[in-house]
Amino acid sequence: MRVTMKDIAKSAGCSVTTVSLVLNNKARSIPEQTQKRVLEVVKELKYRPNQLAVGLIKKQTRTIGLVISDVSNSFFATLTKGVEDECRREGWNLILCNTNDYHKREMEYIRTLDDKGADGIILCFAKEDDPAQLRETLGLIGELGVPHIMVDRYVSDVEPYFVATDHEKGGYLAGKHLAGMGHKRIGCITGPDNLEDSRMRTEGFKRALRESGISFDGRDVYEGNYDMESGERGAEYLMKRGVTAIFAYNELTAYGVYRWAGKNGKTVPEDVSVVGYDDVGFSDIFNAPLTSVRQPVYEMGKEAVRQMIAGIKEKKPKKEKIQFEPELVIRKSVKDLNR
Amino acid sequence: MRVTMKDIAKSAGCSVTTVSLVLNNKARSIPEQTQKRVLEVVKELKYRPNQLAVGLIKKQTRTIGLVISDVSNSFFATLTKGVEDECRREGWNLILCNTNDYHKREMEYIRTLDDKGADGIILCFAKEDDPAQLRETLGLIGELGVPHIMVDRYVSDVEPYFVATDHEKGGYLAGKHLAGMGHKRIGCITGPDNLEDSRMRTEGFKRALRESGISFDGRDVYEGNYDMESGERGAEYLMKRGVTAIFAYNELTAYGVYRWAGKNGKTVPEDVSVVGYDDVGFSDIFNAPLTSVRQPVYEMGKEAVRQMIAGIKEKKPKKEKIQFEPELVIRKSVKDLNR
Repeated sequence: MRVTMKDIAKSAGCSVTTVSLVLNNKARSIPEQTQKRVLEVVKELKYRPNQLAVGLIKKQTRTIGLVISDVSNSFFATLTKGVEDECRREGWNLILCNTNDYHKREMEYIRTLDDKGADGIILCFAKEDDPAQLRETLGLIGELGVPHIMVDRYVSDVEPYFVATDHEKGGYLAGKHLAGMGHKRIGCITGPDNLEDSRMRTEGFKRALRESGISFDGRDVYEGNYDMESGERGAEYLMKRGVTAIFAYNELTAYGVYRWAGKNGKTVPEDVSVVGYDDVGFSDIFNAPLTSVRQPVYEMGKEAVRQMIAGIKEKKPKKEKIQFEPELVIRKSVKDLNR
Repeated sequence: MRVTMKDIAKSAGCSVTTVSLVLNNKARSIPEQTQKRVLEVVKELKYRPNQLAVGLIKKQTRTIGLVISDVSNSFFATLTKGVEDECRREGWNLILCNTNDYHKREMEYIRTLDDKGADGIILCFAKEDDPAQLRETLGLIGELGVPHIMVDRYVSDVEPYFVATDHEKGGYLAGKHLAGMGHKRIGCITGPDNLEDSRMRTEGFKRALRESGISFDGRDVYEGNYDMESGERGAEYLMKRGVTAIFAYNELTAYGVYRWAGKNGKTVPEDVSVVGYDDVGFSDIFNAPLTSVRQPVYEMGKEAVRQMIAGIKEKKPKKEKIQFEPELVIRKSVKDLNR
């Protein structure tokens, strides 16, 4: 059982108040001999303060809540690792919450995290959240007065501060690479249209096409859901439309294109070129390793924690927009049509 | 800011003691009118009890600590999802701790979890733990009096209770399948030798070979580390020894074999057959989808929580050995040599 101050007092032959004064460096009035005895017993019994009590008094638990969609998705697993590693480095802890992309669950978790005294919430809001729902979520957080940092997903109109990748640049890198390899009919399998990070990829992609003198056709865009199934469906749809290459807006979507190819006797990149996004998974185990726009996901997780803890220490929540640079990792999934 | 009992008292025009009595159903002596007013204010101000205080009084925080190697590994991400989903279903929360397979970090986390009032610890011990180190870990947990459940990894000699897959059976299924497909020279890429779950796979594999009249050659066993790199090295070693098939002891190891094949112009299953283990990843995105022994990882996570919470509720830690059945999922990575 846990050693309490009572145990210390009993063993040292003094009162609990004396123990408390000694442990909190307020023991000026206590005889030195007694102080020494208390500290000896503390060491002997391996006493450690109950952090619930400390948390109540200091109004700080050194705990951060991370609210994400689903940790079994590699993207979020990597983000979570970054968050937890940085928490640990700072002597903080992480309460993990998976919303499965439900708004209702997101709201529940925020209340619970506040009830449990979390000092801050790192939020990647649910995929189903429309701006009104996100406003409700942020409204609740504001009402509770818990500092928060938005990570990965954001809606600039609702809140212009977040830690995320520059997705306009990411989309641009993908489009530029595909155009440079001679592709003129390029399909996109996007994320859900309500997510700004998906729309920004499209913006960047269009810019690359413009620069390359290729006209953009909205019918070559398939709205996916950042999962493997919509990657498969998108590939089916786009290949029928006659594209030679596909820009898949996340890792799972790209895997869906590979799966579609495998099922339909097609080969990457001979029959279809693919550029993925995220690069958190196993891009290099394919026969044609996946060329991908890399997001520094692990670093984003760490940065969100740094922002959070700095804000808490300065008693002024961080209000910053931090955009990480994406990077194109060229492997072998894009056919060079210039040759 | 958080609404406190003080705020309620102020708003209702009564003492904090009165509010506390009303909220804790001990208000028999308080006038009904006052009780009603307090409850109205509670509703109006959306008061929710501070769970740190509740935790201190009830000596229960409804929080479980999960200590694993690394959540960015799909196996642990899936396990974590199972643990968190079941916690949520029960109204509990999860503090996530990644040891990165260091014993020292495992010890630190256990102390922190106890300090933060975690009601129980679900432990998958660090890969580097030898039996003495595991004894030290379990000794600390015992000293602190925190209930624990071992999950996935175990050392029967140290503690015979755990939630895990029947790996003897898993190894048997792999060996039986490969032998049934006509393979007689089968290599193994194991996990670290100090892990019983790896040794049990070998036991089952040997039993399958015996039953099939194939002699087992210890030189066809390569000690890996449950990662992709050792999968590659193992494939390199075993292929030189002339095996036709490889039993990879986890998902990442199997990916390593695919990667080795890709780098060396070889094809699965034409040049090398592979059976994987875990089946938590992307087995079906390969050109030759991976045949694999499936562990019900997500279910194991949920079961560990069920055991934990039941034990806490009954105030009697569960002492059970729960073994999940593995299942062979046949895809296309094994060549049929009988044809």
